[in-house]
Amino acid sequence: MRALVYGAQGLALEHDHPQPQPGEGEALIRIMQAGICNTDLEITRGYKGFQGVLGHEFVGVVEAIQGLDARGQYSHLLGQRVVGEINIPCRGAQCWYCRQGIYSHCPRRAALGIVGRDGAFADYLTLPVENLHLVSDEVCDEEAVFVEPLAANFEMLEQVHITPGMRMLVLGDGKMGQLAAQVLALSGGEVWMTGKHEEKLALARKRGIVTQTVAETERLVQEGERLDLLVECTGSEQGLDMALRLVRPRGTIVLKSTVAEKGALDLSRIVVNEIRVQGSRCGPFEPALRALRQKHIDVGPLVSVRYAFEDAVEAFRQAEQKGMLKILLKMH
Amino acid sequence: MRALVYGAQGLALEHDHPQPQPGEGEALIRIMQAGICNTDLEITRGYKGFQGVLGHEFVGVVEAIQGLDARGQYSHLLGQRVVGEINIPCRGAQCWYCRQGIYSHCPRRAALGIVGRDGAFADYLTLPVENLHLVSDEVCDEEAVFVEPLAANFEMLEQVHITPGMRMLVLGDGKMGQLAAQVLALSGGEVWMTGKHEEKLALARKRGIVTQTVAETERLVQEGERLDLLVECTGSEQGLDMALRLVRPRGTIVLKSTVAEKGALDLSRIVVNEIRVQGSRCGPFEPALRALRQKHIDVGPLVSVRYAFEDAVEAFRQAEQKGMLKILLKMH
Ligand SMILES: [Zn+2]
Ligand SMILES: [Zn+2]
Repeated sequence: MRALVYGAQGLALEHDHPQPQPGEGEALIRIMQAGICNTDLEITRGYKGFQGVLGHEFVGVVEAIQGLDARGQYSHLLGQRVVGEINIPCRGAQCWYCRQGIYSHCPRRAALGIVGRDGAFADYLTLPVENLHLVSDEVCDEEAVFVEPLAANFEMLEQVHITPGMRMLVLGDGKMGQLAAQVLALSGGEVWMTGKHEEKLALARKRGIVTQTVAETERLVQEGERLDLLVECTGSEQGLDMALRLVRPRGTIVLKSTVAEKGALDLSRIVVNEIRVQGSRCGPFEPALRALRQKHIDVGPLVSVRYAFEDAVEAFRQAEQKGMLKILLKMH
Repeated sequence: MRALVYGAQGLALEHDHPQPQPGEGEALIRIMQAGICNTDLEITRGYKGFQGVLGHEFVGVVEAIQGLDARGQYSHLLGQRVVGEINIPCRGAQCWYCRQGIYSHCPRRAALGIVGRDGAFADYLTLPVENLHLVSDEVCDEEAVFVEPLAANFEMLEQVHITPGMRMLVLGDGKMGQLAAQVLALSGGEVWMTGKHEEKLALARKRGIVTQTVAETERLVQEGERLDLLVECTGSEQGLDMALRLVRPRGTIVLKSTVAEKGALDLSRIVVNEIRVQGSRCGPFEPALRALRQKHIDVGPLVSVRYAFEDAVEAFRQAEQKGMLKILLKMH
């Protein structure tokens, strides 16, 4: 099969890559479309030390389930479109995290296209059936590719009680920032966004988000405006430092972007202002699917370019460019 | 009156310092005892740029109230022993924090012996009557001096839902760590403490706290033990880094110590493990008074040395020594 492989020689589209075989309780999934995520780009710069097939944002069709007899409750997935949670936990009886259902933190987990499991930039992938979520007809393939990153933003609502009276600021106008702003706006609260790219800020404005430059936000805060919650989506370590200067006392900062570097940070500000800094990673798929089905979230304008899978290497080069939002790969 | 003043010439006990005059709605309080806090020591190293009378942990007797007629509900305080909240807010009708009753975060606040208001290392101080809390007979002077730092530890319970099933670790065996461990233990959960001073760890063990070296804790965590909540009371920036290595995924770190320096920090660990880092400063006085009254907290063993106020400068030198817990100054 075809697969976009990151290895010692860099990134290459292989045409004779062996097709993955589903293990017991796993599904074989034919990929329809997949999205390029910043994590994929970071892996090609050495993050996580992963080598293999990249990709973890996808929609596909279940072609087979290994050991289906023992898993009758999953038979309805056969031939259907699905999206898949990317963490593959150990599910061991001895594993505290798996017993609690906190699969995304199982210490022995693999992660699709990131750690220990080939990913979605290929004709086929395999995942445990428990990871799969049916995609209903109201959600098209392009939308379904956004379920994984959208779920990661619904995770914020699991962690922090976000209320309609809040004023919130998303730092960063990229893919993650756009989704974060749309999810926060569902609360009824006032959402601001800062960023450097006018065309991306314009997208947010169409959704009712108040957009500003960082300098404008800093001036408003100095004049006494209060920001109850900040979401750091810039991907730079200056982001958290800026957030600590902008958030009000007793406010919350949600950290979404994994900063690989070690940053210098004024910790006393966290203590004196009693700030909560909340790390946030993977999230629940069903709320993301519901929100797309109910048209509460609009991901269409977040697609910058669509590539045929044959041009996947070129698509990666494009994704590295500034100003890009989501780049999609079309396999089938 | 006598007052321990920090100024351009350093620390000095003055004997003819002018007695403070209570403003409208303020009480004049004759100090009985006061405690030396790490913040006091930090101020003598330049922290906050404060110059004046130091000290903010105290118990005293209300000698007068200015404008008492208009404040009839406070007349019962006259002649009584009180402790006092240290933040003096603006209470302005335009101040969002004051309107919400979040006085400790009023942006125009003064703080006793720290910012804009002379403190408790003197024969007298003044505070707004609203800051005062009556000390009942069951609580002796020495215990009452601990109300302010004890309240700062009850603040954790206002911020984080601490449950009996939790295993918690206090990093640091100093004054703050000892109080934090006692407060956390009230939850019924298992409390561990790490520290470097055997005699201080022994104090904690007497209260049922499990004590360890950091190396022992690190080994246990590597072997699979989980720590749900960590309280950083070491006062060093390595403390948070260590906490991030020890806390379980989805766990909470409470930052108590104000680290003036900027630290290097691996932020990706906060995101990947979805850690909550919660800054925590001043807290509610009444729960602290109740806990002392009901003998749930035992502060007696935390007093290292008692000094007559005449020897206050010497007491400060003593407080700088390693291995010290609380040092008390006796004014009256
Ligand atoms: Zn597991
Ligand atoms: Zn105020």
